[in-house]
Amino acid sequence: MKQVTKYVIKNNLKRLFTYRVCLISFKRKGFDRVFSYNLGEEASVSAEQVRKDFSEFKIKGNKKGGYQIDYLLHAIDEIFKFQHNEHIILIGMGNIGRALVQYKRFVLRKMIIVATFDIDPSKQTKRWGIPVLPLEQLDEIIHKFHVRTAIVAVPEISAQEICDILVKSGIKGILNFAPIIPKVPVNVVVKNINLCDELQSVIYYVDKQIMDS
Amino acid sequence: MKQVTKYVIKNNLKRLFTYRVCLISFKRKGFDRVFSYNLGEEASVSAEQVRKDFSEFKIKGNKKGGYQIDYLLHAIDEIFKFQHNEHIILIGMGNIGRALVQYKRFVLRKMIIVATFDIDPSKQTKRWGIPVLPLEQLDEIIHKFHVRTAIVAVPEISAQEICDILVKSGIKGILNFAPIIPKVPVNVVVKNINLCDELQSVIYYVDKQIMDS
Repeated sequence: MKQVTKYVIKNNLKRLFTYRVCLISFKRKGFDRVFSYNLGEEASVSAEQVRKDFSEFKIKGNKKGGYQIDYLLHAIDEIFKFQHNEHIILIGMGNIGRALVQYKRFVLRKMIIVATFDIDPSKQTKRWGIPVLPLEQLDEIIHKFHVRTAIVAVPEISAQEICDILVKSGIKGILNFAPIIPKVPVNVVVKNINLCDELQSVIYYVDKQIMDS
Repeated sequence: MKQVTKYVIKNNLKRLFTYRVCLISFKRKGFDRVFSYNLGEEASVSAEQVRKDFSEFKIKGNKKGGYQIDYLLHAIDEIFKFQHNEHIILIGMGNIGRALVQYKRFVLRKMIIVATFDIDPSKQTKRWGIPVLPLEQLDEIIHKFHVRTAIVAVPEISAQEICDILVKSGIKGILNFAPIIPKVPVNVVVKNINLCDELQSVIYYVDKQIMDS
């Protein structure tokens, strides 16, 4: 099984999220319309890039009068289907897993963690209203809640095995926090978040910036 | 104050981290040499890309015999100065902050969280051997431990203010988990991690994949 680049998270998708954050910030400041150059400036991209991204996602604007912020937010929400509940499962109730279960912003975006799983029986209890279950119940929960997406927060050593089990159980998308690059079939979407690498990248550029200046 | 794109985390840096993960995996499997096409296949990029990235970071290889894995790992570690301790501070001891303080992998990569800060006096105590301090002690700690990099895990509402304070206190790099795009001077490096956006991206491609198939 190999992960190919069929469903890599593209930069235009990332920018759409950035625009969303900027638009919410504009709205809070009392604005109700923006031009592509306002949004570009806020998002650190060119106005052309903003227009190109919007056109790619079929978001229409009126160049003369700018875009209505509410319309843009609605259009982005439509693209991401923010109005529908999406059921998620989470595997691994270590530090990261426990933090994510308590992360309230997922629910605000209608991403509902319906169950978590851990192989450690001492962790198998019901906390924060969400059950911590043994892996034996995985299939049952996936079927019952029509789960397509899983968060993997298990140690490195068991991460590939867990991904294999998830794929076998019908999971189609994985947000992986383990420091591996899991091998999955081409029709499964994987996004890896390596917190060490992220922090190390910042330090790398801090070093570079100090050397440059 | 505006964040410009001077120190954006570039894709070649991200790929270098990916190569590192792959190399460690190859090494565990008992290999001691790899060719660029092995590494490319594992990292889902072309062999040319691997060679181009290595050449950009001045990592030398012998095309005929491939690369020695230990040499590559050492070279990457040199680029990221993995052998030096880097002192980090963390602001905001909510769920994410608490998880990161307990995240053992940072220490393995010599990124040491020397202190954490929270405005809530009830959280100001010493847990897991790392003190939780009031913001008044920020300057003292930054000075004492020569801290250049901070993790921001505060709520959205206070994130910009905290970033302003950090910059004023001499912080040069910020790993930000708050769902805003902080405005900082051009010489400050910011990397934003929005966990909702990451999960939503996976769901978006799961939807797309199901529609495509």
